[in-house]
Amino acid sequence: MTNKKTFLTLVICVCSSLFFVVKANTATPKTALSDQESNPNTLGLMKGFPPPVDKRVMLPDSNFFSFPNLRWSVCHMRELLPTASINRNVSGYQPLEYALVNGIDDVKFTPTNTKSIMSWHDSLAKNYTDGMLIIHKGKIVYEKYRGCLSEHVNHAAMSMTKSVTGLVAEILISKGILQDESLVKEIVPELENSAFGDATVRQVMDMTTSLKYSENYADPNADIWKYSAAANPLPKPESYAGPIGYFEYLQTVKKDNEHGVIFGYKTVNTDALGWIISAVTGQKFNDVVSELLWSPLGMEVSADITVDGLGIPFSGGGMSATLRDLARLGLAVANDGMVNGIQVIPKSAIDSIRKGGSKDAFSKAGYKSMPNGSYRSMWWHFHNANGAFAARGVHGQTIYIDPSVDMIIVRLASHPTASNSVIDPTSLPAYQAIADYLMSN
Amino acid sequence: MTNKKTFLTLVICVCSSLFFVVKANTATPKTALSDQESNPNTLGLMKGFPPPVDKRVMLPDSNFFSFPNLRWSVCHMRELLPTASINRNVSGYQPLEYALVNGIDDVKFTPTNTKSIMSWHDSLAKNYTDGMLIIHKGKIVYEKYRGCLSEHVNHAAMSMTKSVTGLVAEILISKGILQDESLVKEIVPELENSAFGDATVRQVMDMTTSLKYSENYADPNADIWKYSAAANPLPKPESYAGPIGYFEYLQTVKKDNEHGVIFGYKTVNTDALGWIISAVTGQKFNDVVSELLWSPLGMEVSADITVDGLGIPFSGGGMSATLRDLARLGLAVANDGMVNGIQVIPKSAIDSIRKGGSKDAFSKAGYKSMPNGSYRSMWWHFHNANGAFAARGVHGQTIYIDPSVDMIIVRLASHPTASNSVIDPTSLPAYQAIADYLMSN
Repeated sequence: MTNKKTFLTLVICVCSSLFFVVKANTATPKTALSDQESNPNTLGLMKGFPPPVDKRVMLPDSNFFSFPNLRWSVCHMRELLPTASINRNVSGYQPLEYALVNGIDDVKFTPTNTKSIMSWHDSLAKNYTDGMLIIHKGKIVYEKYRGCLSEHVNHAAMSMTKSVTGLVAEILISKGILQDESLVKEIVPELENSAFGDATVRQVMDMTTSLKYSENYADPNADIWKYSAAANPLPKPESYAGPIGYFEYLQTVKKDNEHGVIFGYKTVNTDALGWIISAVTGQKFNDVVSELLWSPLGMEVSADITVDGLGIPFSGGGMSATLRDLARLGLAVANDGMVNGIQVIPKSAIDSIRKGGSKDAFSKAGYKSMPNGSYRSMWWHFHNANGAFAARGVHGQTIYIDPSVDMIIVRLASHPTASNSVIDPTSLPAYQAIADYLMSN
Repeated sequence: MTNKKTFLTLVICVCSSLFFVVKANTATPKTALSDQESNPNTLGLMKGFPPPVDKRVMLPDSNFFSFPNLRWSVCHMRELLPTASINRNVSGYQPLEYALVNGIDDVKFTPTNTKSIMSWHDSLAKNYTDGMLIIHKGKIVYEKYRGCLSEHVNHAAMSMTKSVTGLVAEILISKGILQDESLVKEIVPELENSAFGDATVRQVMDMTTSLKYSENYADPNADIWKYSAAANPLPKPESYAGPIGYFEYLQTVKKDNEHGVIFGYKTVNTDALGWIISAVTGQKFNDVVSELLWSPLGMEVSADITVDGLGIPFSGGGMSATLRDLARLGLAVANDGMVNGIQVIPKSAIDSIRKGGSKDAFSKAGYKSMPNGSYRSMWWHFHNANGAFAARGVHGQTIYIDPSVDMIIVRLASHPTASNSVIDPTSLPAYQAIADYLMSN
């Protein structure tokens, strides 16, 4: 039953990368329901005991990650797929301070390349927002839950998971456990004959590896299908003879050209980094994230992370977490690793991320929506006047850090379109407008 | 791929009932590895990145719930199957008091029907114990973690889940939300034409319904296979035309003889009770358990519960929880629902469980290992001199409450044999010896 149909369904989940699904789905479907119409509570998705046939979101028949079903699924990943826990500290959580600011909903901005005016309030619906939290000068000034989300529910972080993985790698570097100039094969001998073997850890972290890795959905022999088949946690068909799980798949990826020249956003880099992290720590990825971040940052809720059929966590995109806990992560990064006066994350780890990546390597990749951007340690750098950088995931996930005004915006969403390039026009100028508003108050 | 092989693998998990698997597996395999030999850490099960082929515990190829693989699986159910969360209270947990008692490991007892002497310490290995906790007069006197278990890890509770479901039903009765004399069809009209339709809620709670429900593993048309196929959360084969999920399956169960006469231990009763609970509360089972138990009892860790392909929690056997949280549950039951001076569970709910069930109905079922026993609200009553009663699950799970000495014993285990009748001879007399020891100190 793990046939092509199953693979097709799972691939969008498995390959939750910022630009990954773009080729299959570059624009909002014209027939897409509005935010209000697609509210999973309004639609009654999965309501009832048992849910009526036309309200069921299942693996794989109902395309659990197609719109509008994904508006329910983003809050229920662990009910659909096997997951591991990223444990919080049982003994307590780090309280967040509140200093709610009035008037934010009425802040106006001009969406990119338009002459129209939109309010912050209306942008929430426009972007199919499930959760929005704004921190200014260390305090929560705005917090809102919508759609399937509430305060203690874990929401799919999608490729923001990559930024967590990158941050963990930077912490291990700061602690001397990992060296970013090492060759991958020196750490993971099993990857010696793959494309990753002669790449440096840094090239993997910044995704400047050169990989023969095709994402042509029209080609039934494209690598994306082999990756998805390997990663799929469901039992394999009896005829299946390919790699099992992320790590076996990574060994089959071949090198294309020279590493270190061009940025190429490919999720397999993050899976390789997850392997590197487990190799140097001897621990499962979810346990490392717990030990280095979820426990010491005082998260309220243990996070979930999907696993492959061998129990290997999907470090490239499998996390689900609460809005507030992602805010705690963003706050710690914005504060150079300090939490309530304690250096929880080494400052040098944050310093390294803040440096940004190679603009030259990034520009060669031709991302028109970020002409001046770069990517470093799995964080996106806008290199704008505010020095903003971000964790980003498909369908509208973001932790947006604006150091110039000491502001962090966390958005969880379930936009019908995967690509953030569709969502940015009603997001990035809105963030700037909020920054201006907070500074003027 | 959800073929007969998959069903065979899953059935032991899905139908985690005390006497359920007995018919297939009544004795410890003579070739079974010892406790020490089968320690999953010693065996290296699922160790390595990725685990070597011969160390993999997977769905479905490696029989994840066959021995010795189950010694790993009992601590990792959520990494193998989709699960929902039974949320704890985020704001904090209820501390447990400690008054550790020396000498417990040296307490001696005579296993049933033997003339040998065994120490408590040796009984732990004999019973393939993963966790053992003893509370006396409200304080922890003994706590031990073994095998795959540690203090914050959720362990499969198996059919102890039923006792949680029964307790929840009793609470709803105490609150006037559910009436135990109601007919099931009055609450769940979808069950009108099934065996459950004209049964009372009480008959379902005490498993005195009379069901045409065959568990003959040798018969490919036995009901157990249909139940397992329906409950299996993995995608159905394309040829599959049967019921989907627990609730659709329950509608197909037919009545045998008169209800209320003979005790019959069948997991489908608890699934029906789970549906009744959701019908009267309008909430998912896991949310009800959180609201009535996991949150107010101040659990340390959110519990997990497996779900079917429609997200319906397996109220008959799907929970995983920590040793201490199950101890909190036992302590609250033993204390008539009081936790630190607060009536968290209505006393009348506990009173009803304490009454015990019909010995007459129970004796007709012919359970030789409990000649004087009964079953009430999904709790087992020994009707021994101590008035002990228990939650029990296959492979050695138990919450054993001895009111006469104010003692609660919680054991989590992964015994090679499912049936507790094999484990009782080195357990029940050991519990009595501990009771005597604690009273003499």
